[in-house]
Amino acid sequence: MDMLWNGWGDPAKAAPLPDTVTGLLRDLLGVKPRTTPVLALQDIDLPAPTADQAAFKALARAVGGEEHVRTDAESRIRHTRGKSTPDLLRLRAGDASDVPQAVVLPATHDDVLAVLRACAAHGLAVVPFGGGTSVVGGLAPQRSTFVALDLRRMNGLLDLDPVSRLAVLQPGLRAPEAEALLAARGFTLGHFPQSFEWATIGGFAAARSSGQASAGYGRFDEMVLGLTLATPEGTIETGRAPRSAAGPDLRQLILGSEGAFGVITSVTVRIRPLPEERVYEGWRFASFEEGTAALRRLAQDGPRPTVLRLSDETETLIGLAQPEAIGAGLESNAGCMAITGYEGTAEDTAQRREQAAAVLRAAGGTLIGSEPGERWAHGRYSAPYLRDSLLDAGAFAETLETAAFWSRIPDLYAAVRTALTDTLTEAGTPPLVMCHISHVYENGASLYFTVVSAQGEDPVAHWTHAKHAANDAVLAAGGTITHHHGVGTDHRDWYVREAGALGVEALRAVKGRLDPEGLLNPGVLLPTD
Amino acid sequence: MDMLWNGWGDPAKAAPLPDTVTGLLRDLLGVKPRTTPVLALQDIDLPAPTADQAAFKALARAVGGEEHVRTDAESRIRHTRGKSTPDLLRLRAGDASDVPQAVVLPATHDDVLAVLRACAAHGLAVVPFGGGTSVVGGLAPQRSTFVALDLRRMNGLLDLDPVSRLAVLQPGLRAPEAEALLAARGFTLGHFPQSFEWATIGGFAAARSSGQASAGYGRFDEMVLGLTLATPEGTIETGRAPRSAAGPDLRQLILGSEGAFGVITSVTVRIRPLPEERVYEGWRFASFEEGTAALRRLAQDGPRPTVLRLSDETETLIGLAQPEAIGAGLESNAGCMAITGYEGTAEDTAQRREQAAAVLRAAGGTLIGSEPGERWAHGRYSAPYLRDSLLDAGAFAETLETAAFWSRIPDLYAAVRTALTDTLTEAGTPPLVMCHISHVYENGASLYFTVVSAQGEDPVAHWTHAKHAANDAVLAAGGTITHHHGVGTDHRDWYVREAGALGVEALRAVKGRLDPEGLLNPGVLLPTD
Repeated sequence: MDMLWNGWGDPAKAAPLPDTVTGLLRDLLGVKPRTTPVLALQDIDLPAPTADQAAFKALARAVGGEEHVRTDAESRIRHTRGKSTPDLLRLRAGDASDVPQAVVLPATHDDVLAVLRACAAHGLAVVPFGGGTSVVGGLAPQRSTFVALDLRRMNGLLDLDPVSRLAVLQPGLRAPEAEALLAARGFTLGHFPQSFEWATIGGFAAARSSGQASAGYGRFDEMVLGLTLATPEGTIETGRAPRSAAGPDLRQLILGSEGAFGVITSVTVRIRPLPEERVYEGWRFASFEEGTAALRRLAQDGPRPTVLRLSDETETLIGLAQPEAIGAGLESNAGCMAITGYEGTAEDTAQRREQAAAVLRAAGGTLIGSEPGERWAHGRYSAPYLRDSLLDAGAFAETLETAAFWSRIPDLYAAVRTALTDTLTEAGTPPLVMCHISHVYENGASLYFTVVSAQGEDPVAHWTHAKHAANDAVLAAGGTITHHHGVGTDHRDWYVREAGALGVEALRAVKGRLDPEGLLNPGVLLPTD
Repeated sequence: MDMLWNGWGDPAKAAPLPDTVTGLLRDLLGVKPRTTPVLALQDIDLPAPTADQAAFKALARAVGGEEHVRTDAESRIRHTRGKSTPDLLRLRAGDASDVPQAVVLPATHDDVLAVLRACAAHGLAVVPFGGGTSVVGGLAPQRSTFVALDLRRMNGLLDLDPVSRLAVLQPGLRAPEAEALLAARGFTLGHFPQSFEWATIGGFAAARSSGQASAGYGRFDEMVLGLTLATPEGTIETGRAPRSAAGPDLRQLILGSEGAFGVITSVTVRIRPLPEERVYEGWRFASFEEGTAALRRLAQDGPRPTVLRLSDETETLIGLAQPEAIGAGLESNAGCMAITGYEGTAEDTAQRREQAAAVLRAAGGTLIGSEPGERWAHGRYSAPYLRDSLLDAGAFAETLETAAFWSRIPDLYAAVRTALTDTLTEAGTPPLVMCHISHVYENGASLYFTVVSAQGEDPVAHWTHAKHAANDAVLAAGGTITHHHGVGTDHRDWYVREAGALGVEALRAVKGRLDPEGLLNPGVLLPTD
């Protein structure tokens, strides 16, 4: 099963918009039905590959056969950019200017090393490709002659240590495949990001993914105990112990390196027993401020639910807290909805649920019951499908995210909302801006914003302008430029400001040592100049 | 209050050996009373400084006055090497060959930058110095013309954010000072390593310290949310959010860098409310294997005590699980002693204690009661004082530590014991080798070994040989070369093997960018050639 080439997911899961939403888009945001024709994949004009046949032959030798070097139009288009809304809109408009020369499919770590040698010899850049779900331009290098290194053949569970609770996974494993392999042995990884259906283990590590159950299972980078990295200069192997005082943590240098330092060829992860029970429920708070204080209390003093989310007033009103119920019952959606989830043994689940309920009640929350929780759980991966429908209907929809220490959250929230609302209103497409907290820590939390507006004349240009204003606002308010989407090319200039000139220089020194010819994801994460 | 120049701590806390121990040393290990005379600090011959007066003047300008550049013999000797047993034995034998040219005391981040400039101009290396408690040669650079950069004037609490539960601490704060400043505001850091009385915040960060309450409060590197680093090339500031997907984690590149990349000038740490209660108790298991399985159960499935330790049969027999009771009641010390501790609110403490007790009982443990726990807590910092007494009595005593995933712990334990026993026995000084687990994780644990033997002809040479064999055994059995002591110069060659050639090259690239002239701790952590 492949994703839609010009959208998110499985066409069979398309989510048509309810009439209430179509009416809302029209009346509230001035969305007009699209008038431009829909392009088919076959209609896309591709630039012909400029690499010579010797290069393709060298790549075929590297990966054990010509059938693993694909140069057909469909393969190339399916490896063009990622899944941000601008990515989709550009492709829908027929712009395939970031297309790779070829798609190369290695089967082993040594294949990857051989591909890197072949690319060095033939002047080709390399873009590691897992699920292709980047929403930050992480698959759009600043070089026109590159190959996509699709890791789908490296999709095995290599080892499982039930005593240490560790599994060694290959990078091309999609999350559902990984969960199925682990479940057969009684374990789970517990990593359930919105991209779950398509994204891969290697991508999670390379971009520091964080899943919807991060309150209980941790972020992906917290699950990683070891990594193998293939670079043009050789191999790095890390991770002999859960924690060590042996120097800087090399794992943390590879996590978040987004393919710019090397290709992750295996990931050793912490695993946990499959939960006996999974319970989700809904809570209501009078305001985002009250709900935020309640979440902070649980994050700091416990007990920690496995899932902990809070939608702001607008997101609650629209019903996006439960994407499958969107638009239903607007009148009853007052205040702010929170979702709590508990996964574990029956005993542990019951105890945490009872104790967390006491904390939430004391903080002003009202239990609405399990129905909103189960509805959230059922629709937890559906928001990107909804985006497809919104784009089809002529609306614009996109998300962005950040994180900060708790004391900065109120100002950060206000600053980003204002930046988005002001710039898009000025552009003639006043938006609906919604927000939720979906990842909590003792010392802070994430903020995840969803923006819906009319497309207007030039939606990509409008959004780029608004997004830049939001990025500036994030940095000015003390947030990080990304909590879990990654840097890619879209966040790079703000990332440079966040890390500081010398911090970036230190990382460029690492890249210079591991990838001296700059073959790996040029322009992703780090500037090329 | 300064430490003993040739020992661990406050002379007032000296721990004389009970007669039973003296007898044991003589009868079991063949320890003979020392015959060599005791040197006084005044007896030590120091090489005169070779740096010229212009250099000292430049340093005085950098730190605001000549009184902050100390060149007297006592200051220099007190900044010579650290506190490993070989360090102490060398100094006791009058060998001050690693003495700094001067001790420089900066008061601010800008002072540190100015010192680095002055040292670059005058060809002096720089060794950042906190509490001086390194036991891995972290203060003995491979250059004879260096200054010790003592951070004791930078000992303030710069900021405290009670909402986010963060504090900004200066690097020269000793742990008890930091705890006192935080306690005045109702908070604790919860970091209580054996070096607590002397070690500093900057040192904890630079060497990835881990405290005795790490099961509850985490390791020091897990407490760090932000760092400021002064380097010869400028400043790096990190940490805008608890977690971020903005590239590799620069904090994790600074943590564990042991002064080789720069000088840590501020540390933002997670803080927690002062506990209402602190309860410690003792448990007994039939064997180290049974006790290890019990600890693993708590580490993996909870509830997690705040303190969780397990001594092996030998350590339990000798009574080192409670250093202040050493040698008392050998006959009743059968099996393996574990210590559990609970700190927090009264309710939380009671609940965790009850639930953990059920787990420990089911795993074969017998509660001995609170007396051994309280005795452990009372003597928790006394082992290094005991070492002073052992050295005075003519015995040799030293420790080493490692960590690994749970499934490797039994082999690692056996391999290190065998390596130490075999090499020291061969050298004519058969040792007593004791071990405990003092830090647990979901996926593994630390092992901490204590070795006591007769000094023999050349204790430093004997130990060096034994320690190298133990290091080889650690790597061969899949452990990390250090769990919390750090790399320094003593572990460097094994660290290079553990990190791998290319991993080390990546870190050398970072050092090359931040410290191009190699002024900072040359030969510590990374090889100089």
